[in-house]
Amino acid sequence: MFDFTLDATSGPARAGILTLPHGTVETPVFMPVGTQGTVRALSPADLRAAGATLVLANTYHLHVRPGEQVVEKLGALHRFMGWDRPLLTDSGGFQVFSLEGFRRVDDDGVEFQSHVDGGRRTLTPERTTEIQWTLGADIAMAFDHVVPGGADAATARDAMERTLRWLERCGKRHGELVQRSVIASCNQTLWPILQGGTHLELRTEGVRRILALGDWTGLAIGGLSVGEPKAVMYDMLERLEPKLPAIPRYLMGVGFPEDLVAAVERGVDLFDCVAPTRNGRNGSAFTPDGPVNIRNAEHREDPRPLDATCDCETCTTFSRGYLRHLFMAEELLGLRLLSLHNVRYLIRLAGEMRAAIRRSAFGPWAAEWRRRYLHTGSA
Amino acid sequence: MFDFTLDATSGPARAGILTLPHGTVETPVFMPVGTQGTVRALSPADLRAAGATLVLANTYHLHVRPGEQVVEKLGALHRFMGWDRPLLTDSGGFQVFSLEGFRRVDDDGVEFQSHVDGGRRTLTPERTTEIQWTLGADIAMAFDHVVPGGADAATARDAMERTLRWLERCGKRHGELVQRSVIASCNQTLWPILQGGTHLELRTEGVRRILALGDWTGLAIGGLSVGEPKAVMYDMLERLEPKLPAIPRYLMGVGFPEDLVAAVERGVDLFDCVAPTRNGRNGSAFTPDGPVNIRNAEHREDPRPLDATCDCETCTTFSRGYLRHLFMAEELLGLRLLSLHNVRYLIRLAGEMRAAIRRSAFGPWAAEWRRRYLHTGSA
Repeated sequence: MFDFTLDATSGPARAGILTLPHGTVETPVFMPVGTQGTVRALSPADLRAAGATLVLANTYHLHVRPGEQVVEKLGALHRFMGWDRPLLTDSGGFQVFSLEGFRRVDDDGVEFQSHVDGGRRTLTPERTTEIQWTLGADIAMAFDHVVPGGADAATARDAMERTLRWLERCGKRHGELVQRSVIASCNQTLWPILQGGTHLELRTEGVRRILALGDWTGLAIGGLSVGEPKAVMYDMLERLEPKLPAIPRYLMGVGFPEDLVAAVERGVDLFDCVAPTRNGRNGSAFTPDGPVNIRNAEHREDPRPLDATCDCETCTTFSRGYLRHLFMAEELLGLRLLSLHNVRYLIRLAGEMRAAIRRSAFGPWAAEWRRRYLHTGSA
Repeated sequence: MFDFTLDATSGPARAGILTLPHGTVETPVFMPVGTQGTVRALSPADLRAAGATLVLANTYHLHVRPGEQVVEKLGALHRFMGWDRPLLTDSGGFQVFSLEGFRRVDDDGVEFQSHVDGGRRTLTPERTTEIQWTLGADIAMAFDHVVPGGADAATARDAMERTLRWLERCGKRHGELVQRSVIASCNQTLWPILQGGTHLELRTEGVRRILALGDWTGLAIGGLSVGEPKAVMYDMLERLEPKLPAIPRYLMGVGFPEDLVAAVERGVDLFDCVAPTRNGRNGSAFTPDGPVNIRNAEHREDPRPLDATCDCETCTTFSRGYLRHLFMAEELLGLRLLSLHNVRYLIRLAGEMRAAIRRSAFGPWAAEWRRRYLHTGSA
């Protein structure tokens, strides 16, 4: 039920096929983020039209509202949100560590304040594993302790050690839930999250110790893209890559187009980020020639599509002038159309990378892509 | 190019086919309102999926933003908004009379303050006719002076007389534009608007004088549903009906499901209203059993669709519990899904009325519909 086959490499860049209970996923893959059980402004039909094969939902958000019991009563997460393809849920670790307000961490877990009702709640490794089991995504994530990008070695080690202890507990509870399951074959796998901040020796040790703890079907790299310089992240990925096993590698919370290209170049397979939808709602669109701010006056009478190379509904139906009008007039349709395009853009970008890897030409493809995307001309 | 064929009647209720440059429209018909060149929260593909055949756009709004010249440069209104089926534009009369702030009316036209930039602008019968010609909808409306629902006979007569004088000027300018047109056959028709408040003798006189002014392809009834009791509107429609010619009758700004049924029963063919989208954004959905407020706690774990009889994406994909979650979590998708359902509901309602008329059974159908919709049970 959980299989990953590498079907091509081009340097460290890899193309593969990930088989999950709800379908297969070609990698490299970008996952749109459905924080509250919906990818903001997009419907499941929009996501299918954009070519999404794997969607992420946030355990923390669904736990505080509407609550996993409600989701379960409404048929679990796939049916709840009307998405029949693969789903991944995060563990809530990143969310509780980025929440404003009260938070108390000890070895048992994290006590925090709900952003919805202000009530105090506790997440433990066992609890988040149970919640994710109830939600029923194809891939669940282990509970992790995330530290800021600039954390010193002692702080980063402390969080990594805790994350490793929590991983054991998540794995144990997940195994119990699988054994207790009435479903003959397990329909959910658990992935560990590597922490260790920007400290290579911690990350290297972390990989070794995670692999010693189980026969994982995938591995996530957490705690990057959390404030450190991009060059530091790229360097870390490059140095980590030779130490990673062939299983799928998921770089959490990344990213922008240039980050996807740089990370695939360094052997990463899966990505998630709110950038395409958040930026889309702010009027910023990804294009092959770099980002475009659709509110700019230059687009007022522009009959051209946002991205002439794109096959999405936004680009095949509407002019830049109309899209600008929607944003100036604060019309809801604009939020959706730019979100849709940006998601489609990242999914097409992943597909282009996959094609370049399969023809063993990732390097030249990436150079040409960068020449066009990162140029300093108009846009 | 502009033809209306009555194909069935059932008492005063009528079913017909309206032929317009961009397609045919079966009546009775409900027009979704695309105020700023977009039906709020819905895409043209959503509108097609909802079965919309005719959409209204607001001349006032498009004139103040982005301006008709911008729309023209972007290929005129159909292309601008990505809608290739028939369009109707109102004249801006209703808008300038319902604007807050400065307004000065004289026989020449109306000076008013733009709600976008506060600048003073003037609309005259000639100007609104030219703007609508530039926008290029299939049906343009004559400029009218609207008075509140409770206006006395003298005020209503004054506005009606002005509206009649303005109609002559609109007709004259529209005729000039048609003659000057490079298009062999005219691609826009102009419809007059009947005013006269709640005064039957004014309305009757208005009909007679409008018909004396031209060979119109349709007639709109304005100045109802503007604050007067519903019984007054229904009574007015009933008394006017025998005096109206067989051409399409458009009741402006109406309405709610019960209003559509009552007006079709009294010989009306076309409707427009923001209710389905505005109410949808507020979480209120039309159903055969009456309105449902999706925010109500009773829907929290309800796996049923919003409307089990409905074939829209919302009702065939999502549970009431999920829709409630979207509203509680303030997710944009909820606004779209309820707007989509409500528009589909009114379009299906018009279709059901058409079918009942064609089997000469409008009366029994309406009685049964009311029994269910207006019941005083749950929902």
